[in-house]
Amino acid sequence: MGKVYLIGAGPGDPQLMTLKAARALCRADVVLVDALVNRGCLAHARPDARIVEVGKRAGGGTSQAFIEKVMVQTAKNGGTVARLKGGDPFVFGRGGEELRALLAAGIEVEVIPGITAGIGVPAALGIPLTHRELAHGVSFITGHGAEVDWAALVRSKTTLVIYMGLRNLEKIVSGLGAAGMDPRTPACVIENGTLGTQRHVITRLGALSSAGFRGPALIVVGAVVGLANVMNSQKAKAA
Amino acid sequence: MGKVYLIGAGPGDPQLMTLKAARALCRADVVLVDALVNRGCLAHARPDARIVEVGKRAGGGTSQAFIEKVMVQTAKNGGTVARLKGGDPFVFGRGGEELRALLAAGIEVEVIPGITAGIGVPAALGIPLTHRELAHGVSFITGHGAEVDWAALVRSKTTLVIYMGLRNLEKIVSGLGAAGMDPRTPACVIENGTLGTQRHVITRLGALSSAGFRGPALIVVGAVVGLANVMNSQKAKAA
Repeated sequence: MGKVYLIGAGPGDPQLMTLKAARALCRADVVLVDALVNRGCLAHARPDARIVEVGKRAGGGTSQAFIEKVMVQTAKNGGTVARLKGGDPFVFGRGGEELRALLAAGIEVEVIPGITAGIGVPAALGIPLTHRELAHGVSFITGHGAEVDWAALVRSKTTLVIYMGLRNLEKIVSGLGAAGMDPRTPACVIENGTLGTQRHVITRLGALSSAGFRGPALIVVGAVVGLANVMNSQKAKAA
Repeated sequence: MGKVYLIGAGPGDPQLMTLKAARALCRADVVLVDALVNRGCLAHARPDARIVEVGKRAGGGTSQAFIEKVMVQTAKNGGTVARLKGGDPFVFGRGGEELRALLAAGIEVEVIPGITAGIGVPAALGIPLTHRELAHGVSFITGHGAEVDWAALVRSKTTLVIYMGLRNLEKIVSGLGAAGMDPRTPACVIENGTLGTQRHVITRLGALSSAGFRGPALIVVGAVVGLANVMNSQKAKAA
């Protein structure tokens, strides 16, 4: 019997992958890679490894059933699989579903966490997610659903990190405003974070706009955004 | 002029450090390392690098002023500094304070994010922090302060990951209960996560107890804890 590594590839920059992820990639006979994973990460795969692109961007692409079938069959035939996901597999990565399917099929699995975009991308702008006096916690949420309780999140006083929120940006801004958040609260949008193509706007909640962004983008809202220091000036071109 | 790398060493296992962190460590003349960082991470430092232990565990140890002075002086003398912190520098790592002090002194800084314990440690138990139908988000908070609004966090319906909560465990449990959280909600305590010395208890909110743990420990509360699969059985000895 083979084995499946469920791997987080990190937020973009291939150098932000872990040592453990790079080692697991070296061992893989088959690599299943999501659309949002930077192709530089594949440099660690063996030259003879089979690379399977399983992107699901914008709802299209490969079915979950196909992905799980390839992983189970490869492992049952004694092969080693690296399942490479953007960010961390367990933070909006649907890794839990794949883990359960593999375990149900009796496959050995090892989860290798990755740096989620919500942590790695603000770091590239010098934004601390928690900071004495400003934020005692941080919440990661998605902006594409209707199930978010904005009032509870505002009351929690945590820094808000919103994944996949670009299309619903106006709803998010109005939801936070209706929940009592000050429109002057610092906020930013960051596209292609940690990559050479990174673009961002640092502004206030009331002035947030998706104009000029095509995604994937991250939205960060909270007083800590006011501490942003754009250090990697060679990378970070303001939008 | 030299440079300071503000580096997240990850949650424990030295293999969960990033490739970028390992490369920055190779370049450092001086390495300032926190008490909670696994000493295996120092294997990437040069043999001639000066290693400075700056642990602040339990409030004692090195002062923040001393740490900042060593970094500023080394960089001003043309040296390269690696400031190695447990987890991620910007998630309860006080990295924001050090970044501001360094920038104020005119020092070049690069932040290298790390895998925070709140993501890396639950992954080792197969706990997905978000999962369709069960949790649409996750909140990271500390359990040592009095400023937490438990009612808001319960209402947010995010998975709750509580750092440094062992000493206040009873207050946390009663706070969540008073805020209306079902005492049958799955919950766990994990000590020394991702290391060979890892110990954990997976239970329900109402039965959480700090008995047998000495920390550092992480507490995770939410329906997703019910999906835990202890895969790394050679590592994870149930407490």
